Amino acid sequence: MIRDLWLVGIGTGSPGHVTLEGVQALREAAAILLPRKSGKDDLAHLRHRILEAAGATARVIPFDYPVRDESLPYQARVAAWHDEIAHRWQAALRDAPDGPVALLVWGDPSLYDSTMRIAKRLDPRPRLRVVPGITAIQALTAAHAIPLNTVNGPVTITTGRRLHDGGWPAGADTLVVMLDAECRFSDLEPEGLHIWWGAYLGSEDQILRSGRVEDVAEDIAGTRRAARERHGWIMDTYLLRRLR
Amino acid sequence: MIRDLWLVGIGTGSPGHVTLEGVQALREAAAILLPRKSGKDDLAHLRHRILEAAGATARVIPFDYPVRDESLPYQARVAAWHDEIAHRWQAALRDAPDGPVALLVWGDPSLYDSTMRIAKRLDPRPRLRVVPGITAIQALTAAHAIPLNTVNGPVTITTGRRLHDGGWPAGADTLVVMLDAECRFSDLEPEGLHIWWGAYLGSEDQILRSGRVEDVAEDIAGTRRAARERHGWIMDTYLLRRLR
Repeated sequence: MIRDLWLVGIGTGSPGHVTLEGVQALREAAAILLPRKSGKDDLAHLRHRILEAAGATARVIPFDYPVRDESLPYQARVAAWHDEIAHRWQAALRDAPDGPVALLVWGDPSLYDSTMRIAKRLDPRPRLRVVPGITAIQALTAAHAIPLNTVNGPVTITTGRRLHDGGWPAGADTLVVMLDAECRFSDLEPEGLHIWWGAYLGSEDQILRSGRVEDVAEDIAGTRRAARERHGWIMDTYLLRRLR
Repeated sequence: MIRDLWLVGIGTGSPGHVTLEGVQALREAAAILLPRKSGKDDLAHLRHRILEAAGATARVIPFDYPVRDESLPYQARVAAWHDEIAHRWQAALRDAPDGPVALLVWGDPSLYDSTMRIAKRLDPRPRLRVVPGITAIQALTAAHAIPLNTVNGPVTITTGRRLHDGGWPAGADTLVVMLDAECRFSDLEPEGLHIWWGAYLGSEDQILRSGRVEDVAEDIAGTRRAARERHGWIMDTYLLRRLR
């Protein structure tokens, strides 16, 4: 039975993204719940580098991610997957030492991440502490040295799936797209459309591209495909803006 | 003449928000450009605490913010103000030591912040390095322990000014409002509308409120007014979502 669960945002791929509060939390935790190595060896490696750099001495408790049931429709599939992960956490934590348990969360625990929703399925429900982390959005704008918004302009954050279903959102000025494995920017009306794209943001493997969509779309798609093959995985995101 | 300007995001009010990369940058900088004490003594104090905690030994070069010309229309007023700040940086840095100059930027340098736009006015234009920082948005969702987005849902970030001019943006699911000194959430149709509000996020003075807008709007407006009077300044932000 765990009373305190700390979700620690670790940023997007650089150990330097971890905040001082994050370092402190990893040092003070009694146990650290960590996914076992999957295909994404780089990520497991990064997590261990972060724990080492933080000087964390807590017991590491591993768990395995379940496989998603692809036969279910999207929302049901996600819900069933979260249920099963909560189940596995509960089992893994049965013999955890007393005290707070920390989870390292990619990016920030609030942005397109399931950890908070899974944590709320635990019974009894633990007290949650969220330590904010650098998101892929900030890593992207920092790497390109561009502002996220125009002066007093709004910003819309969305997913590849929604961009595919709904196209360019009404009233959007700056659009940030996450979780897009299909380069959906290519489906948009290219007139005046500029893109700032980044993969493996913050890490030594960071790749950046920017320009008019019509000029760089093909290069980005090809670069993405090749990098994904080389690494066995990819995380990327991009910002779109129509320049007049 | 400065060749390298580093914009270091310091988060929103907690020295714990600074990242390891931020600490390192403050240590490696040859000089640090710092606004002189304004009315906002807490902020000046926080900046000095951050520099001390980072072990920064660089020469601190102060500058004064100019006063905005309120007789100009909004966009022109902002542009003139940025021109004047760039001018003052240039003057202040005339005798700066060789090497990179760092600027501490509240939140993240990409989000509703002028530093990047001002830096581009310097002549010659310095090489920019942006160190991402925790934004008020992440500090807000972390403090309330809530996700920023619904499952696969979009997020719109906007300003109080735009909310006032345009109302609830078409297609918005989650709305984050920044730079709103007028509690514009009170102007919206309250049916099903929930708010998560926070001020002085991340600091010892953090104040949080949440609930249905019709239940908490008055409390937030009053709390905001009183806190602003007590501190002499306020920074706050909020998230809105219609719950069905």
